[in-house]
Amino acid sequence: MKSGDSTAIDVPDPAAGGGAAAKGKAVPVVAAPLPWPGGWKKGVAIFDFILRLCAIVTALAAAATMGTSDQTLPFFTQFFQFQASYDDLPTFQFFVIAMAIVGGYLVLSLPFSIVCIVRPHAIGLRFLLLILDTMALTLTTAAGAAAAAIVYLAHNGNPNTNWLAICQQFGDFCQKASGAVVASMITALVFVVLVLASAMALRRV
Amino acid sequence: MKSGDSTAIDVPDPAAGGGAAAKGKAVPVVAAPLPWPGGWKKGVAIFDFILRLCAIVTALAAAATMGTSDQTLPFFTQFFQFQASYDDLPTFQFFVIAMAIVGGYLVLSLPFSIVCIVRPHAIGLRFLLLILDTMALTLTTAAGAAAAAIVYLAHNGNPNTNWLAICQQFGDFCQKASGAVVASMITALVFVVLVLASAMALRRV
Repeated sequence: MKSGDSTAIDVPDPAAGGGAAAKGKAVPVVAAPLPWPGGWKKGVAIFDFILRLCAIVTALAAAATMGTSDQTLPFFTQFFQFQASYDDLPTFQFFVIAMAIVGGYLVLSLPFSIVCIVRPHAIGLRFLLLILDTMALTLTTAAGAAAAAIVYLAHNGNPNTNWLAICQQFGDFCQKASGAVVASMITALVFVVLVLASAMALRRV
Repeated sequence: MKSGDSTAIDVPDPAAGGGAAAKGKAVPVVAAPLPWPGGWKKGVAIFDFILRLCAIVTALAAAATMGTSDQTLPFFTQFFQFQASYDDLPTFQFFVIAMAIVGGYLVLSLPFSIVCIVRPHAIGLRFLLLILDTMALTLTTAAGAAAAAIVYLAHNGNPNTNWLAICQQFGDFCQKASGAVVASMITALVFVVLVLASAMALRRV
């Protein structure tokens, strides 16, 4: 039976520890199909919950920073006033909307994450969270990368296409936009960890 | 000795396969904790392999299309010739490099995918592929989104920042860049499906 257990189930370390302990205690055949105590899965679920809280903060910070980034220069000509705002650039609008959606999704996913803590073996729920997290990861990365491309252009301009750097005039605006991009990148990083943690919790161990 | 081996070492495929073979030959009782026949897991693995082939095509097509997108206008002034190439824009350079990396990774991952077909219960290997696929998904999405932001700007310009649309002059260049962005988006979509398929194959069902 013991060799059967270890060959049939492709045992990684934590369960192996549990299995070894059970073996040491000489638990008979019945314990075989469930060698893990669910302890490390509960740990992963708690970790997941904490990461979600962090991601909520960074996602909403990114949306709020970008959403409030407007700057009016203290001088104006006869024709127009020099003003920069996030909704001058469609990419930044997309960024604000996407990060707000991600933040909202994260808040709504908290109850599910709590259920995963209470019931570490709720595979279906965890798989649902994994699917939605993958979508949110893609959305966050897309928004962050697109905004980063525009922020880079605003900082450096491009002589080949005659796109001038606007950050010399609108320094504060660029600062806030850059900060928002950094926050979105952190959110994307947290999502990568969330996806991998969910996949690890799904592992048949 | 067999149980000690498999619990101490975090067994990948060969040990599991060998164990299963041994089990099939000798130990009949052990088949009980293995209710699934592994059939659908093999199906998922074959699906994974086919998706990888598609993703190789789209990723390399994206890199090649963007990498060959240069256009020289048939007129020039005293001072310079009008020419557009992907390396005029750092974002497009990043795009080409990122898609080439993703294409290379996909080619290198094919043997591992084949191993997953041969041994559908190789959990460790599948988890490794899942981690790398998640990274590649993030890279692809970032490259595609950043290039999309620049392509949008090249098509439409932005009156607020005085960035003029260059696609009126460089129509062919913009066409190729847009095509490359579409190809990268398809690659990203394939990666989402790959990640979810890997996670499903990891499910303890």
